[in-house]
Amino acid sequence: MTPYSFLDDYSEGAHPEILDALVESNLSQQAPYGTDRFSAEAATRIKARLGASFQGDVHFVPGGTMANIVSISSCLRPHEAVIAVDSGHIVVREAGAIEATGHKLITVPAVNGKLTPAHIEAALAANGHFPHMARPRLLYVSNATETGTIYTLAELREISALARQRGLLFFLDGARLGAALASHRNDATLADIAALVDLFWIGGTKVGALLGEAIVVCNPALAQDFAFHIKQRGGMLAKGRLLGIQFNALFGERDLYTANARHANAMASKLASGIAAKGYALSAEVETNQIFPILPDPVIAALQAHFAFYVWSKASPGHSVVRLVTSWATDEHQVDNLLSRLGSAVGRP
Amino acid sequence: MTPYSFLDDYSEGAHPEILDALVESNLSQQAPYGTDRFSAEAATRIKARLGASFQGDVHFVPGGTMANIVSISSCLRPHEAVIAVDSGHIVVREAGAIEATGHKLITVPAVNGKLTPAHIEAALAANGHFPHMARPRLLYVSNATETGTIYTLAELREISALARQRGLLFFLDGARLGAALASHRNDATLADIAALVDLFWIGGTKVGALLGEAIVVCNPALAQDFAFHIKQRGGMLAKGRLLGIQFNALFGERDLYTANARHANAMASKLASGIAAKGYALSAEVETNQIFPILPDPVIAALQAHFAFYVWSKASPGHSVVRLVTSWATDEHQVDNLLSRLGSAVGRP
Amino acid sequence: MTPYSFLDDYSEGAHPEILDALVESNLSQQAPYGTDRFSAEAATRIKARLGASFQGDVHFVPGGTMANIVSISSCLRPHEAVIAVDSGHIVVREAGAIEATGHKLITVPAVNGKLTPAHIEAALAANGHFPHMARPRLLYVSNATETGTIYTLAELREISALARQRGLLFFLDGARLGAALASHRNDATLADIAALVDLFWIGGTKVGALLGEAIVVCNPALAQDFAFHIKQRGGMLAKGRLLGIQFNALFGERDLYTANARHANAMASKLASGIAAKGYALSAEVETNQIFPILPDPVIAALQAHFAFYVWSKASPGHSVVRLVTSWATDEHQVDNLLSRLGSAVGRP
Amino acid sequence: MTPYSFLDDYSEGAHPEILDALVESNLSQQAPYGTDRFSAEAATRIKARLGASFQGDVHFVPGGTMANIVSISSCLRPHEAVIAVDSGHIVVREAGAIEATGHKLITVPAVNGKLTPAHIEAALAANGHFPHMARPRLLYVSNATETGTIYTLAELREISALARQRGLLFFLDGARLGAALASHRNDATLADIAALVDLFWIGGTKVGALLGEAIVVCNPALAQDFAFHIKQRGGMLAKGRLLGIQFNALFGERDLYTANARHANAMASKLASGIAAKGYALSAEVETNQIFPILPDPVIAALQAHFAFYVWSKASPGHSVVRLVTSWATDEHQVDNLLSRLGSAVGRP
Repeated sequence: MTPYSFLDDYSEGAHPEILDALVESNLSQQAPYGTDRFSAEAATRIKARLGASFQGDVHFVPGGTMANIVSISSCLRPHEAVIAVDSGHIVVREAGAIEATGHKLITVPAVNGKLTPAHIEAALAANGHFPHMARPRLLYVSNATETGTIYTLAELREISALARQRGLLFFLDGARLGAALASHRNDATLADIAALVDLFWIGGTKVGALLGEAIVVCNPALAQDFAFHIKQRGGMLAKGRLLGIQFNALFGERDLYTANARHANAMASKLASGIAAKGYALSAEVETNQIFPILPDPVIAALQAHFAFYVWSKASPGHSVVRLVTSWATDEHQVDNLLSRLGSAVGRP
Repeated sequence: MTPYSFLDDYSEGAHPEILDALVESNLSQQAPYGTDRFSAEAATRIKARLGASFQGDVHFVPGGTMANIVSISSCLRPHEAVIAVDSGHIVVREAGAIEATGHKLITVPAVNGKLTPAHIEAALAANGHFPHMARPRLLYVSNATETGTIYTLAELREISALARQRGLLFFLDGARLGAALASHRNDATLADIAALVDLFWIGGTKVGALLGEAIVVCNPALAQDFAFHIKQRGGMLAKGRLLGIQFNALFGERDLYTANARHANAMASKLASGIAAKGYALSAEVETNQIFPILPDPVIAALQAHFAFYVWSKASPGHSVVRLVTSWATDEHQVDNLLSRLGSAVGRP
Repeated sequence: MTPYSFLDDYSEGAHPEILDALVESNLSQQAPYGTDRFSAEAATRIKARLGASFQGDVHFVPGGTMANIVSISSCLRPHEAVIAVDSGHIVVREAGAIEATGHKLITVPAVNGKLTPAHIEAALAANGHFPHMARPRLLYVSNATETGTIYTLAELREISALARQRGLLFFLDGARLGAALASHRNDATLADIAALVDLFWIGGTKVGALLGEAIVVCNPALAQDFAFHIKQRGGMLAKGRLLGIQFNALFGERDLYTANARHANAMASKLASGIAAKGYALSAEVETNQIFPILPDPVIAALQAHFAFYVWSKASPGHSVVRLVTSWATDEHQVDNLLSRLGSAVGRP
Repeated sequence: MTPYSFLDDYSEGAHPEILDALVESNLSQQAPYGTDRFSAEAATRIKARLGASFQGDVHFVPGGTMANIVSISSCLRPHEAVIAVDSGHIVVREAGAIEATGHKLITVPAVNGKLTPAHIEAALAANGHFPHMARPRLLYVSNATETGTIYTLAELREISALARQRGLLFFLDGARLGAALASHRNDATLADIAALVDLFWIGGTKVGALLGEAIVVCNPALAQDFAFHIKQRGGMLAKGRLLGIQFNALFGERDLYTANARHANAMASKLASGIAAKGYALSAEVETNQIFPILPDPVIAALQAHFAFYVWSKASPGHSVVRLVTSWATDEHQVDNLLSRLGSAVGRP
């Protein structure tokens, strides 16, 4: 038996309704490179969620690193740098993709996974010996963060205000924005985000698409010629319909985008509650679809016979932190199964 | 009624058998980033076509510009340049993607769409004022070419021999390699190509996949660390399975790769024969899935009511060259329909 | 005896008055990185030549390729391309330096060494398939050109008007701008040029400095943060005074800049007249400090015993074009000497 | 009266013997772009100091950032990263120059200004999630460091051994290598360094040249095509003689290189001893030509009327750390003068 995976939120293919939409539209002839009817509709549907004052554009690209490459490199001049937390995806999980476009990353410590105004100010103060230092120009945040925490509306507003005051661009990586918006701690809407940042992207891959992210360029000054950058970096698909159809389904009447994210978070919440009920601690409060319980090493070993997950770090002698990730596809029976097997492990020495 | 499109070979989604494979495998949990079972199987199937002596690797990326970016930038040092024909896809259809990775393109005239040894020698002679000129290092060819012509085995051998003699790398862009291999003029196999070039790619997008190209790194010296480049350029999909499943289907027992390409070429051939039978000239012999008939302008206008295609260039007063592209999805009834409507146009003033 | 060199205009060190200025100022302590008193004075002196309406900045860099790298890369976004003639210095003599900053060069044929409005229009027409082609954005010209010809004021005005009409930036490489301004055919001033282009540079190296070029940023929108680019590309000298002192001397009361250029052109003119008087043809009219006589091969061989110069191309059986370059340092006795030795060769079979 | 500057070691022009060499050679005609007689001689003289087994090449470039750009970008593939201390010159004083060539900098804490094996190991351990992280490939150290400390021979050997064991390149930025070699703590020779690193550079600018650094490529595999990189990055001077003549003088019979560095260090040592004798503390032991005394703020204010220097950091209420830098040009009378004025300040509240 293959262990059931809680390793990540991209182990399965697509939500069945998305696949259905692909199958149904398959033989209709469409214009290429993102100029198809479905991409236009998907953009319209997304814009409808961005508030009446939204003046920007929506573009679709195949993946998250591509979304970050295009978003960041399109809006910086060569001497401009990015401020990000040291655990940021562009810092430690994209193989130097941003530097490969010529830009320096200035890293600051993460506070609960997040960028804070105090650390931004410190970075500006420490990087002001011009022109001998690259000019800090763009703030990068991920929401949800790499550790599953989220920014509150107040936090986003504070960063946005600081960015505008200091002449910085504010960019949000939304690989897991669905999970953030579906969090019980969340009080921001897509329209709030669109009003506060210069550009951001809405991840599709981790919320039930086969692939695809929607870049939302909010600042009209950054929207000009945006498609060139997608093309030049290799992110423009000949069959752009593939992305449009999927986002059309995600943002359709049934709001699959929200439903999928809620399922993922609900499964994480159920796991967390169940684990806590067995008497185990969590190393952090659960905000989205990642949970970090602290378990005895023999319990971990026993679970590994049936489930795949990452052992994240050592907690204390004999105990480790593990990471469990849920998704739109997580089977609730497997959640129950894990909790049940965990239960049988309690009380062991 | 929407006109039936002969504009390109990527107007539809995927071949139904490829979609079926996606649907069937959809909920199986797979390892991410190209380490899934399907990608491994697809690579094995492709390698089985590359000859017993093949020592390299196969990687999958989402699109053609990405395949070119990764292939070229991974094997050049900063001062090394590419030799390509002036009609090459990287020269005129990728928005400066190769230059964006830092490399100069040295262009030479195309002969029937193709790079010739004489032009390579001329480029070397004209670019030897070192170190004031970038060092020519990589030969770029497309097969089929951008105008639908193909390289014979003898031509490929001649370029390969020259490349080895002059210390050049030989790279082949196979966006339409399927059409080339299925051409009535073709006498090369995938194994021949793998033996003659340093790296090449097998296009999936234009032969029935939703997206995806398979990069084949033949030269073992270039294979080291190849995955880093895919990741860094934004070409590594979280759900790499999406590419593996499709290439698995294309290179499966039924050899959909060949069947789809043959259908496209057969439809082009039928169009060409039919058009010729009506008394119209073709501006070039048909080698793959693109045909370039010369038609009277009123005939063109009449056809445009029912079919979409590009008017390519002016041929003579009152006559233009048009381009018709067929694909794995081309409906033979529409071919008949076009020929029939064309027929009714003959004899007009 | 070492042959006397007419190979180029950078065979000697610096004009003695420039060396004197370096010696005289040597031990004064100065602020670093171009913020010294001499650089400020030199900028003021240059600005005094640029017209009352000049609103830009002047910066100094060590060399010509650096001047081109900084000027071009500072004002383009990643997807923007340069239009240049195929004989342009950035195209064939800078080892791919511009492409190394990420930008495509679109080349057009040179007409007498020069870029013409017709070829600009043709390049725009051929590069408009957006976003699949890089956007043409900057016009690059050299004055004097790589073959020693110059742009008239009318030609510069015509290109400038076209650039503004089509939203293009106009950049002038002035490695040999001194020679151009000192040409008998010239009718433009530095102020004219400053009014017509977006940025340009005034070469110092080839007009008597040890090294150094002055970049003049005319368009205020391009002046912002310019020093960052110089620093980032490695063109900011710790002892920036070295450049300031030299340009201060070149643009001082004695106007060494003009005097040096005139001497170079006068020596070329004398050579040309003398050679013509001996009955030899020139392959092109002499406009600046390069001449291209057509000589019998035995005459060339005889001259080579005493003088160094390039044999440029074959003219006809038994005759070749040679290139003779004069400079601020050319010894008039050696000019006489060459003419005299040439004389003795006339009449030979 | 202008305050006498202890701000840096590049406030003056060149050592008079270097200027003399420039004046003397000024009108000799030389081949361009570093192929002149003087550059060849200077390279020979430097190689004579590098040990009998040295197999590499020596190249001259105008400045330190250029030396780092060329050295690093010439030997890395696109996905390879640099490990450096967070106070490294390439990290905080070169405006993102290395990232602008596409490479990630991985920073670790400095220990007394230096990179340590433990921090290298930690960086490798933290950056091994391949291919999602850039591959650490090159170790960057400065000797002397940015804070004036130096590496002992044992420390260099330990890093070199680790680099070879882990497949890393070892690169040494020698902007102040003269000061390091002249330190009373130094036990390494140029030959030792050449044997231990893959490439390094010998700074000329800060040891009495107008400008110029000598890059020593020790690893023969990195030497191939090196000149292309200098040209492409804009670091090849038309009058390369300017660099050759100066290094010829520095490494001539009188060994001006060592003499100049010793003078700088001696002046720093005298300043340090004198300040300590007055009862003030130094925040760090003096190893080269930078000293960091801790002075009462009123004393600092009084000194500033006569001397220019940086107030570096706050030490305690009412006291600050200042930085005094000496050079080949430091006037010993001014050192005495400073100590004398400092003396009169002692005993103040």
